[in-house]
Amino acid sequence: MSAHALFLLLDLVGTFAFAISGAVAAKQRNLDLFGVLAIAFVVACGGGIVRDVCVGAIPPAGLSNWRYLTTSVGAALMVIVAYPQVTKLRHSVLFFDAIGLGLFAVSGAQKALTYGHNAEAAVLLGVVTAVGGGTLRDILLARVPVILQREIYASAALLGSTLMVACEHFGVARPWTPWVATLACVGLRLASLRLRWHLPRFANRNPEA
Amino acid sequence: MSAHALFLLLDLVGTFAFAISGAVAAKQRNLDLFGVLAIAFVVACGGGIVRDVCVGAIPPAGLSNWRYLTTSVGAALMVIVAYPQVTKLRHSVLFFDAIGLGLFAVSGAQKALTYGHNAEAAVLLGVVTAVGGGTLRDILLARVPVILQREIYASAALLGSTLMVACEHFGVARPWTPWVATLACVGLRLASLRLRWHLPRFANRNPEA
Amino acid sequence: MSAHALFLLLDLVGTFAFAISGAVAAKQRNLDLFGVLAIAFVVACGGGIVRDVCVGAIPPAGLSNWRYLTTSVGAALMVIVAYPQVTKLRHSVLFFDAIGLGLFAVSGAQKALTYGHNAEAAVLLGVVTAVGGGTLRDILLARVPVILQREIYASAALLGSTLMVACEHFGVARPWTPWVATLACVGLRLASLRLRWHLPRFANRNPEA
Repeated sequence: MSAHALFLLLDLVGTFAFAISGAVAAKQRNLDLFGVLAIAFVVACGGGIVRDVCVGAIPPAGLSNWRYLTTSVGAALMVIVAYPQVTKLRHSVLFFDAIGLGLFAVSGAQKALTYGHNAEAAVLLGVVTAVGGGTLRDILLARVPVILQREIYASAALLGSTLMVACEHFGVARPWTPWVATLACVGLRLASLRLRWHLPRFANRNPEA
Repeated sequence: MSAHALFLLLDLVGTFAFAISGAVAAKQRNLDLFGVLAIAFVVACGGGIVRDVCVGAIPPAGLSNWRYLTTSVGAALMVIVAYPQVTKLRHSVLFFDAIGLGLFAVSGAQKALTYGHNAEAAVLLGVVTAVGGGTLRDILLARVPVILQREIYASAALLGSTLMVACEHFGVARPWTPWVATLACVGLRLASLRLRWHLPRFANRNPEA
Repeated sequence: MSAHALFLLLDLVGTFAFAISGAVAAKQRNLDLFGVLAIAFVVACGGGIVRDVCVGAIPPAGLSNWRYLTTSVGAALMVIVAYPQVTKLRHSVLFFDAIGLGLFAVSGAQKALTYGHNAEAAVLLGVVTAVGGGTLRDILLARVPVILQREIYASAALLGSTLMVACEHFGVARPWTPWVATLACVGLRLASLRLRWHLPRFANRNPEA
């Protein structure tokens, strides 16, 4: 299997995992069939669509490449017909979601570099690719995005995209650099889940201010 | 009256109906004058603006064509000065809203095809054009978008844009194809309103999962 | 100091003030470190990023110009380490926020004109630049945007961008036109704060309608 095919496969694995987390959240909010499909698609492809609009990749791949839509719809239907089983796989979902996070952060940063943008834009767009879908999900479900509140999630994406962009920027990128950056992101995310790491919050002594 | 002028007229009818539904919702939430105008404009033009950004039609027509802004502002002012009368026309508003839905779904899909995008992108962008404004309205009002929760609404838009794109894709489009696709969408929407059709929801036996 | 350097300096002052207001709101909602940084950045740069996407300035300056990110992060860190002092400077924050509003409204309108768009698009994009970040902040915090509910805020931005665009449109723009337009916006905003001016709301006698 070529590296390209492997990367596409893993990208679709990430899409699938993200779509499942979206469909589960939509079903728990009692949305209808269209709502479940729409939220699954938004979580899986929303971050990439925002990135593509910002880098000038028109039309966004999430809208024009049938693989992403099909994968999202498949994941959503699986959640609908096999909800009890999917919720038992909760830990697997978190695992694949972490893989999706790492792959999206690195591939998003790479795409921004491919389109000729600078290091800062690439790092930020890698993070947007990775966490944009989940943020849109929470906006549509009218709640404060989880990634702003707790857990090492966006920070892990930031680590992955920064590693990738730094290696490219300083000319030390090798064919396996994307994999190392992805692994760093996935590893940090999984370690933080297992060890319950959190970013600091700041006690609010003056809530009326 | 030429077909082009008729289409523009109907497009503005849809804009007007969408703006009225937005202004009514904003007024019910006790927003101020700017809030009512802004929500009316967002509902009427938000979907088209997102579509234009995604197809590369810069600047978006909703921002640069004075007809859309003027129509939205006119509808909002009408709601402000004649609110009791407008709410009595509730059924008319739903009727025009359905027409707007069908026209936006079909014209959105056509615009994406005109800009050279593929069938999948055209179908999805037709739906975005039709339901994007209402989704943005609900996001701004901090509630879960109605279209994700109940009623045949986005599904009707999907029917209209799919019919339009399929006819183009298989080379059987005729000058009257857009009208048939629009009618199919409007008919499904009105029938679902009258007959209280809904998409299935999925009983949630495990809300904590 | 050249006019260009002065304008950039004031633009960064506006960015700084907007970032502070975002970080304060995020801290009050008990977001974590990433959440505070992200909301500060979104408030400071979100409006400009939406404007750049709509005018076709790819990639958006907010993503690719390090000054904006650095200024936002600096402001957020200042809020974190010196929150009690910052809240005491509440009136200063409102003052700088008003300056940011005026500068963003005028510079946003100018950028749209520079990219060859028409007067209507320029006026609307000036307002989007000025109020977009605050709107995104409120969307992310799952509340109805403040600017839709009360106070002369978007209206002041509308005054500034309209003045700027009208002078350009009618060929009477002078080198000091941007400053006059900015001052008009800032002046209206500060006067409305001091004199408690509001836009009218419309009593809702029929909330169920």
